[in-house]
Amino acid sequence: MTSVQSLSSPARLASPEEGISTDELALAARNHGLPLEALRYDLTPPGLHYLLIHYDIPFATDAEWMVTVTGSVARSLTLDMAAIRELPRRTVAVTMECAGNGRARLHPRPVSQPWMVEAVGTANWTGTPLAGVLEAAGVTPDAVEVVFTGADHGVERGVEQDYQRSLSLTDAMADDVLLCYEMNGEPLLPQHGFPLRLIVPGWYGMAHVKWLRDITVVDTPFQGFQQVTAYRLRQEPDEVGEPVTRIFPRALLVPPGFPDFMSRRRFARPGPIMIEGRAWSGWGPVVSVEVSADGGATWAPATIDAHSDAAADGAADPVRRWAWQRWTFLWDATPGAHELCARATDGTGRVQPLDDRWNRGGFANNAVQRVPVTVE
Amino acid sequence: MTSVQSLSSPARLASPEEGISTDELALAARNHGLPLEALRYDLTPPGLHYLLIHYDIPFATDAEWMVTVTGSVARSLTLDMAAIRELPRRTVAVTMECAGNGRARLHPRPVSQPWMVEAVGTANWTGTPLAGVLEAAGVTPDAVEVVFTGADHGVERGVEQDYQRSLSLTDAMADDVLLCYEMNGEPLLPQHGFPLRLIVPGWYGMAHVKWLRDITVVDTPFQGFQQVTAYRLRQEPDEVGEPVTRIFPRALLVPPGFPDFMSRRRFARPGPIMIEGRAWSGWGPVVSVEVSADGGATWAPATIDAHSDAAADGAADPVRRWAWQRWTFLWDATPGAHELCARATDGTGRVQPLDDRWNRGGFANNAVQRVPVTVE
Repeated sequence: MTSVQSLSSPARLASPEEGISTDELALAARNHGLPLEALRYDLTPPGLHYLLIHYDIPFATDAEWMVTVTGSVARSLTLDMAAIRELPRRTVAVTMECAGNGRARLHPRPVSQPWMVEAVGTANWTGTPLAGVLEAAGVTPDAVEVVFTGADHGVERGVEQDYQRSLSLTDAMADDVLLCYEMNGEPLLPQHGFPLRLIVPGWYGMAHVKWLRDITVVDTPFQGFQQVTAYRLRQEPDEVGEPVTRIFPRALLVPPGFPDFMSRRRFARPGPIMIEGRAWSGWGPVVSVEVSADGGATWAPATIDAHSDAAADGAADPVRRWAWQRWTFLWDATPGAHELCARATDGTGRVQPLDDRWNRGGFANNAVQRVPVTVE
Repeated sequence: MTSVQSLSSPARLASPEEGISTDELALAARNHGLPLEALRYDLTPPGLHYLLIHYDIPFATDAEWMVTVTGSVARSLTLDMAAIRELPRRTVAVTMECAGNGRARLHPRPVSQPWMVEAVGTANWTGTPLAGVLEAAGVTPDAVEVVFTGADHGVERGVEQDYQRSLSLTDAMADDVLLCYEMNGEPLLPQHGFPLRLIVPGWYGMAHVKWLRDITVVDTPFQGFQQVTAYRLRQEPDEVGEPVTRIFPRALLVPPGFPDFMSRRRFARPGPIMIEGRAWSGWGPVVSVEVSADGGATWAPATIDAHSDAAADGAADPVRRWAWQRWTFLWDATPGAHELCARATDGTGRVQPLDDRWNRGGFANNAVQRVPVTVE
């Protein structure tokens, strides 16, 4: 066994009374979520969008970056950033969420990046459709998947690797899948994949490979670590498991009133309070948001706004169907202790559960948010 | 006792075996540090600068923002942002660090925002000198301090408050103290105090009041919560304690090689590795950085770069003396387990300790960074 293997631990579950470990804390200090009051912004300001970096942020320059297209193609391609920017340009507003969002609420807790509910953000992503690049390379008839390799390098559960994920050829050829070089009208920030990343609207974050340096069309299903070991829904460690793919519906609200510093517990004054939030699903449009002020015992419908037409950065007519929708609910806050909840349902009938959805990786836990508020 | 008081806990220390709590984790998920590989950048890119928000990020517009100057002045002032931007303009490159940086390494651990070593960042801050505004208001002879009030509102240890801090009149009148409206040549981001904040170069972050809405000149020392209860160096809870003020020296290095995802433990190949890092002090210039590859048993000098003259955003000749300095050290990495450390000394003779510096608030713990690296 090499020291890489001996010093890189296998996946584990926390014991029942085990607090958050120093390792989990170190990840939480690097990566970060959206402060919930920033749900107010249609497009998440720079630095408030959630961030999950598997290894290190690679150092990169725009001038020297190259991406290759190889494998089951008629013509291998090597493209620099100037060449990519000359290709047809498309802007898509996308709500992106980490597959592990909600993990730290689970019992037992899978030990990994410990998200509560805040691993989300929305941006206008600009790039060129991947389909056009694959068409230029000439995908051959034996192709079944496309593998995307990033420049971030590390070890995970004993496996040294560059970050890699695949999509089926059908998913890869979808209209809104982009080779992306701008976020909200600016070059990508280093932590968001500068100078080039993949954007796969509707999918959890693991699919949107950052620091993209190679696209390989393959004739057998990809068996890489992030595809078949991580990012699987499993109850037992030896299951093959179901792949994590699209984002399950979720609604989050801006916690009303004001917080206690340490507990983030909320206090509000009595009277009418306009509760606002956002809701999204990667499976289909959100068709209803309901709000409860009694911890989920009773529910009332919220009002969902239409998608805003204007992009904050002036991009002409971005595709909006993958972005969250704003909703509001007028709450008559009466003195006492309350627990606010919001619940989204999408057009495919998927709805948020009241209780946590457990699996060994802590993925796709879209249980309803619970916000205790004391009114006095 | 009101519910605000009963639901907002007093300060406490974690018990010896207590893991990080859910409350601490919720703070770590909102606030975030600098990923250490971003020490590579002279100016920290947006979103990678550390962030500590006591309560919520207030919603603000540039057009409606007003700051008042009141108290022991000949003429009270009310300034809007257009008026502030017409005043003399100055850009200062400032390394800012949270006073609680290093807190989570302490035993016993003060329960608060649980930083490891990463609560730092450097930016070019542009604004107008506070001294000019105070001169325009005409400070009266009875003045002793200046109190700064932000718009962020919350509860802390039972005390409902707007965030407030003071400076002595002498400190407030220093050349480089700014009413600041730009960060790296762009309007402030919401989380960094948009549209107006205070910048107090050389001081820990608690002094740089964000979302600044009032400046009050007072004739007696300010007794507010953040001045006399929080941000004090105390060994026992009933001490008056020493105020937390300027930043103690610290050097941090970019961890070499590549990480394990979960532990962030590093692996590297044998051979010469150029170690790079940054060092800073709010008390005086850094005059030496030493590196140890054996956990602090032996030390060798690093090479400190001169301050870079060029600002990344093209600001003309920013003041650089408050910004970190880059340093390098050529390490000959041999197979085996090593522990890299770096230690800064400033011109006042202050030097980083090898062991943690404990106080009940977990402030100003500038013990040397320790980076285990396995070479194979």
